[in-house]
Amino acid sequence: MTSLDDDALMRIAIDASRAARGVSTPNPPVGAVVVDADGEIAGVGSTSPAGGPHAEINALREAGERARGGTAVVTLEPCNHTGRTGPCSEALIDAGIARVVFAVADPNPRASGGAQRLAAAGVRVSRGVGAADAERGPLREWLFRQAHGRPHVTAKFAATLDGRIAAPDGTSQWITGPVARARVHEIRGELDAIVVGTGTVERDDPALTARHPDGSLRGHQPTRIILGDRDIRPDAQIFSDAAATIHVRGHDPREALAAAGDALAVQVEGGPRIVGAFLAADLVDALQVYLAPTVLGAGAAAVDDPTVTTLAQAHHFVLEGSQVLGDDIALTLIRVR
Amino acid sequence: MTSLDDDALMRIAIDASRAARGVSTPNPPVGAVVVDADGEIAGVGSTSPAGGPHAEINALREAGERARGGTAVVTLEPCNHTGRTGPCSEALIDAGIARVVFAVADPNPRASGGAQRLAAAGVRVSRGVGAADAERGPLREWLFRQAHGRPHVTAKFAATLDGRIAAPDGTSQWITGPVARARVHEIRGELDAIVVGTGTVERDDPALTARHPDGSLRGHQPTRIILGDRDIRPDAQIFSDAAATIHVRGHDPREALAAAGDALAVQVEGGPRIVGAFLAADLVDALQVYLAPTVLGAGAAAVDDPTVTTLAQAHHFVLEGSQVLGDDIALTLIRVR
Repeated sequence: MTSLDDDALMRIAIDASRAARGVSTPNPPVGAVVVDADGEIAGVGSTSPAGGPHAEINALREAGERARGGTAVVTLEPCNHTGRTGPCSEALIDAGIARVVFAVADPNPRASGGAQRLAAAGVRVSRGVGAADAERGPLREWLFRQAHGRPHVTAKFAATLDGRIAAPDGTSQWITGPVARARVHEIRGELDAIVVGTGTVERDDPALTARHPDGSLRGHQPTRIILGDRDIRPDAQIFSDAAATIHVRGHDPREALAAAGDALAVQVEGGPRIVGAFLAADLVDALQVYLAPTVLGAGAAAVDDPTVTTLAQAHHFVLEGSQVLGDDIALTLIRVR
Repeated sequence: MTSLDDDALMRIAIDASRAARGVSTPNPPVGAVVVDADGEIAGVGSTSPAGGPHAEINALREAGERARGGTAVVTLEPCNHTGRTGPCSEALIDAGIARVVFAVADPNPRASGGAQRLAAAGVRVSRGVGAADAERGPLREWLFRQAHGRPHVTAKFAATLDGRIAAPDGTSQWITGPVARARVHEIRGELDAIVVGTGTVERDDPALTARHPDGSLRGHQPTRIILGDRDIRPDAQIFSDAAATIHVRGHDPREALAAAGDALAVQVEGGPRIVGAFLAADLVDALQVYLAPTVLGAGAAAVDDPTVTTLAQAHHFVLEGSQVLGDDIALTLIRVR
């Protein structure tokens, strides 16, 4: 087997870390690959749910004795503090790892210092490999929370090309097609919380669960947060046993985020007034827009912010990517801060 | 020099044909390449304005004696009729062309038969090379007119991600950036006519000319068609000397198209009610949507069709392509008929 270079191994580690998204919270979703002294992959791991082992430990366990003299490739600097688990830096040293490659330095002062500890023990350390991909990828929300002290918020809507989410008579299912809807569920399965307004709950009675295309529930379910004053009938689908549900009275986006606790990734899924309220409060960090190849010409707009009067109040984002999903197109945008 | 294969030469012919868009009307914008007996390019041409030589003749003139024993690569089957110019099939035979490659067969019964005439004279003929690119490219609107007896209509709008074209106070300049605006002018320079409503003229006083980024006029200007009942003040920019202007009273999209005469490519540039009227009449064959990476949350929507009440009335298109233009993204969609 040809041995892979650091960049290729880091891509494997980043891919592995996706499995921890939504699951590892409040810990970062990290991925780790351990290769043996011959450069062959001996173990791959990602962060277990809070209280469980970090990614490095899971990869080391799989590698066993093959870790000795080998290399660990990790998306985040190995931690150096004893929380509910021992420090990963010590575990790597004890396992006889000769070299550690990591993408992103740990900004958390309590956990950082891992690289220093490893170097002091004679382990060769390389940093910054694949850093941009890790920062913009699975670590984005956790890094955001470290920097800003609140969850990373994505506003999501599915609309026609002229920005409509429903016709005048209220019909709205389905504006986008099955491939786009499957993608929505895939993303939900990596979130900590979803926020919706009482209006959306009353109108659509959505379950807001993360499901597989066959309708079965995904392994991880985000907490469902309802924002608004109106009472929701107890038999609404949003109160199903599939996931936790919190009803936050009032219309303050900050209170919805507070209810999300130590969440890393929160998605606001509507309706238009709720998305508008988050935008008006400058609490939207990314947009996920699904556009159907249709024009409606009438009906509710995707975003409603009654405080906006002039073009200078527009909320600006930067296009990060676009993806054709069946007949639809998905645009991902980020707020530059 | 390495000789190019038929596909590569056809790509050059298609590129050359773009120069004839808007200029050749009512004739098709055709491109032609003549290569000599050694396979080297001897001449490239496109259709001249109506009454002038066809693409083949322009390419043959440039090639001169080098055409003898050579190959002509043409986007459309060479014509076989004597209109204002002699038949291209005869000209190719007279020039001693040994082989003709063309992309699209001429659907026009008056002009077709060129391939047969060439073959009868002992010229080897290959058809269908690059046909999809030619049909979906510069020949699209002409082929559409041959099939449907009216111009091909593109509806164009520039909007925010939530489908707004202006803020509540009317501010709308500029929603999209300079790269997208430059593209709009490039496309205008290839159109036969632009349609706008009286409301847009009154509100924005647009010149609706095709300009270079430095503000100077492009070589070809589409006819400006105003649709609506209200009088437009004579000193409005739309009445400038730069191009012809026609005011069509009433709100019937068909009358606007009739005013465009033998136009091949017509673009509807707004406002929302005019775009809605064309959609409601099923007279939109393509959409060109420029989306800014912004959300407004209030203000006029890009399309307004008061006849729409339910989702089943949505107008469906197929996404053909997307292009990042500076900070914006342009989506091109076609109506499948």
